[in-house]
Amino acid sequence: MRAHLAPGQGLVSLTKGIESSSLKTMSEIMEEVFATSPRCPIGVLSGPSFSREVAEQHPTALVLASRELAFFRRIQHKISSLTLRIYTSSDVIGVELAGALKNVIAIASGISDALSFGDNTRAALITRGMAEITRLGMACGAHKETFLGLAGIGDLFLTCTGKLSRNRYVGYELGSGRPLPEILSGLKMVAEGISTTLSARRMARRKRVEMPISEQVYQVLYKNKSPRQALNDLMSRKLRDEF
Amino acid sequence: MRAHLAPGQGLVSLTKGIESSSLKTMSEIMEEVFATSPRCPIGVLSGPSFSREVAEQHPTALVLASRELAFFRRIQHKISSLTLRIYTSSDVIGVELAGALKNVIAIASGISDALSFGDNTRAALITRGMAEITRLGMACGAHKETFLGLAGIGDLFLTCTGKLSRNRYVGYELGSGRPLPEILSGLKMVAEGISTTLSARRMARRKRVEMPISEQVYQVLYKNKSPRQALNDLMSRKLRDEF
Repeated sequence: MRAHLAPGQGLVSLTKGIESSSLKTMSEIMEEVFATSPRCPIGVLSGPSFSREVAEQHPTALVLASRELAFFRRIQHKISSLTLRIYTSSDVIGVELAGALKNVIAIASGISDALSFGDNTRAALITRGMAEITRLGMACGAHKETFLGLAGIGDLFLTCTGKLSRNRYVGYELGSGRPLPEILSGLKMVAEGISTTLSARRMARRKRVEMPISEQVYQVLYKNKSPRQALNDLMSRKLRDEF
Repeated sequence: MRAHLAPGQGLVSLTKGIESSSLKTMSEIMEEVFATSPRCPIGVLSGPSFSREVAEQHPTALVLASRELAFFRRIQHKISSLTLRIYTSSDVIGVELAGALKNVIAIASGISDALSFGDNTRAALITRGMAEITRLGMACGAHKETFLGLAGIGDLFLTCTGKLSRNRYVGYELGSGRPLPEILSGLKMVAEGISTTLSARRMARRKRVEMPISEQVYQVLYKNKSPRQALNDLMSRKLRDEF
């Protein structure tokens, strides 16, 4: 497929996923599809943002990443306001991977909540989850600080605490013992973390990055592993340095 | 003051603060007080842990930092269990600063909640707050990844979402319009973030690190600035790159 764009126009991706067959991110697919000449500026917008709250003008901060920063700095100034603050970044792959992979951790966080494990456990899962998705991101060329940023901890924080997250909901229902097909049949929208778990596992193997939490989420999602056993297996791993 | 310790014993600090006069951390003060010969192994234990949940054996992960890692790796193996997982780290100053400075961000998070700003705003404050305390930590010799770890985002996550945090409570009451002396008179325990805000401001000036959120928390705590005005001032700063 090829598509065309007028000169002076650009494209912004809002989608957070990794195609599980090709392991490509949305901006990589867009670059293929919109192979204009001269090259069309492509950006990625991400960060902690329930759209309803943006519409209600609650102060929101987002990151806009692109390799064409000159073009997108103009967009940054055009769309920023007293309630919408846009930061720019050149780390496109980091912003995309952080946004996609954090959904796997959100599923883990939902599972933990369903098992009534409390705040300590959830915070530990989120933190160690960030450590492993950062490792994978860096193996793919992303910058570490992007995972400390709005597309990383910012969005994960929102996903794991807000009531509206579909990925956390899927984890919660899994942790409550419902089978995945039954959960999916009741969902009106896609929970991206389910397919991203597959992509993450394939990428981790390809890059030889250890991702113990994502691996357990995979086992629970796709291999009917008991959530409680998955958590036990995480806690009984060999003790090590934090980083 | 000098104190003595038997050979083979070590000390672990659980306190998260920065002395506002000397700007020393607890382990630095302990090193002065316990100036034994040979030097006494000093460690710092931190991470997301409400003690009640540890007692109830909810899975908990902590980081134990020391310059004497050989000594503390033995402790790591002795106290770890299926419900308590200890990671080791050599970044003592990072673990201490992350644990102390995150309390300033917790106050900001409480203020935002009181102003009914919603999840987007809180996530933005927490993320940009982490960015600035990481900058200050690195200027003091800490490692960036420690702020991505259990003593950093892990503990901040717990503090900003758990019901039990005193620092978030102080922010919430400030945001609701109560004067600080009145809030303090009702507190049974110290909210460390109040004095840490002063220490952070002094350290930031000394190291020439920009800390816009901590500065606004300082203005609200100590200069009677209106919380809403403080947030407006944050949102109207010059637009920039994320890192």
